[in-house]
Amino acid sequence: MRIAIKIGYDGTKFNGFAVQPNKKTVEGEILRILKKTKIIEDRKKARFQYAARTDKGVSAFGNVIAFDAKGNAVEVLKSLEDIWVFGYANVKENFNPRNCIEKIYRYYVYDNGYNYKKLKEALNLFKGEHDFSNFAKLDGRNPVRKINDIKVRKAKNIIKIDFIAKSFLWNQIRRIMASVLKVAKEEIEIEEIKEALEGKKRNFGLAPAKNLVLLDVKYNFGFKNLLPSEIFIKREIFTDALNIHRNK
Amino acid sequence: MRIAIKIGYDGTKFNGFAVQPNKKTVEGEILRILKKTKIIEDRKKARFQYAARTDKGVSAFGNVIAFDAKGNAVEVLKSLEDIWVFGYANVKENFNPRNCIEKIYRYYVYDNGYNYKKLKEALNLFKGEHDFSNFAKLDGRNPVRKINDIKVRKAKNIIKIDFIAKSFLWNQIRRIMASVLKVAKEEIEIEEIKEALEGKKRNFGLAPAKNLVLLDVKYNFGFKNLLPSEIFIKREIFTDALNIHRNK
Repeated sequence: MRIAIKIGYDGTKFNGFAVQPNKKTVEGEILRILKKTKIIEDRKKARFQYAARTDKGVSAFGNVIAFDAKGNAVEVLKSLEDIWVFGYANVKENFNPRNCIEKIYRYYVYDNGYNYKKLKEALNLFKGEHDFSNFAKLDGRNPVRKINDIKVRKAKNIIKIDFIAKSFLWNQIRRIMASVLKVAKEEIEIEEIKEALEGKKRNFGLAPAKNLVLLDVKYNFGFKNLLPSEIFIKREIFTDALNIHRNK
Repeated sequence: MRIAIKIGYDGTKFNGFAVQPNKKTVEGEILRILKKTKIIEDRKKARFQYAARTDKGVSAFGNVIAFDAKGNAVEVLKSLEDIWVFGYANVKENFNPRNCIEKIYRYYVYDNGYNYKKLKEALNLFKGEHDFSNFAKLDGRNPVRKINDIKVRKAKNIIKIDFIAKSFLWNQIRRIMASVLKVAKEEIEIEEIKEALEGKKRNFGLAPAKNLVLLDVKYNFGFKNLLPSEIFIKREIFTDALNIHRNK
């Protein structure tokens, strides 16, 4: 039986998603426990696949893995530390989680007095199809990509930016964010981003991984949702941390 | 100039508070950066002291350290990863952060259908002065201690329990929590806790460290409060994680 599982993880606790020898990775932890509990024999036989290979430090609340499972994979994965199960779905034998409708990444910025209008203007430049050579670490894949939508909003002191596309290049969002934050800090002109998108060689740097989250991956079917108790507790802990020191 | 700094940390990222050779600890990271930036020469000369030595896995949003600082210690400590500055105060030359009015620890429980009335009843047993031999890992200190107050409340699916005392024994709260959760799960009778408090040898186990937070330490003076931007982002991330999967 092939199953798709929507997983979340605290990216700061792992050396990225993809397996690496002698390093704690999300995929490594998942494969280890699935093999140990005989849910799968090995990754190849189980046709283990994933939707996104997030970088070191990037968190997720909706990455998707799929594999041919013998037994209750959801219960087994729930026992992992710092990896959470947000949903599951029985899927067709040929399902590959890369074949999604779209992925939604969210970047969080603490508003230290950025020029919000300029930030929005700069982000708008990246919507649609572009050559992202100056805004990605190129790995042989076609740098011409389409970003379906970019949504920005501000709630009190937090700015959230959603990037929606079927697929993203390596470091693409973090490089875009580095450039638009420079515009919002009025360190560079918006024209410099335009030029870089038109081909002029530029490197605006890389925004921190820890503020980036793979929020969800969408398919033409739904998942049975789960809300991990640990996430409720984490939200409560960080809310209390602010309240206890605010009300004095 | 002697300074007291109110620090927070994600306990799951460290091997406890106290320095250990070749292990990442809260105190170790703090001393390393203070020495590197010449804010202190060494811990002894700077008379470096702390309020509480939290266990591995236990977080804090209000532990207090004090030392004789040369330079802007607050700015230096702000640059640490997974350690946050929640406040600071200039203090007298003889200030020792152990000499507090009280410490507040909060334990978070996800409500899986506990008997809340029994939980409160069991917790009430621990208020006041008792011999905590059955509810601590003894280390030579007097097991007779006084807990000033224990406050319980439930908000939706989270139960929060505050323990207030001038000082606590090693593992004391986690051992108390293990026992009262057994009562709340109706695995043991409340009488068994009474007997253990009266001297009958019992070991009810140890509740997980990751749900325990040293929320604050109170003194007869106030701190200048800071609200770290990273905590706002963390709260927002975990709130979104729940919302994105709830509304489908």
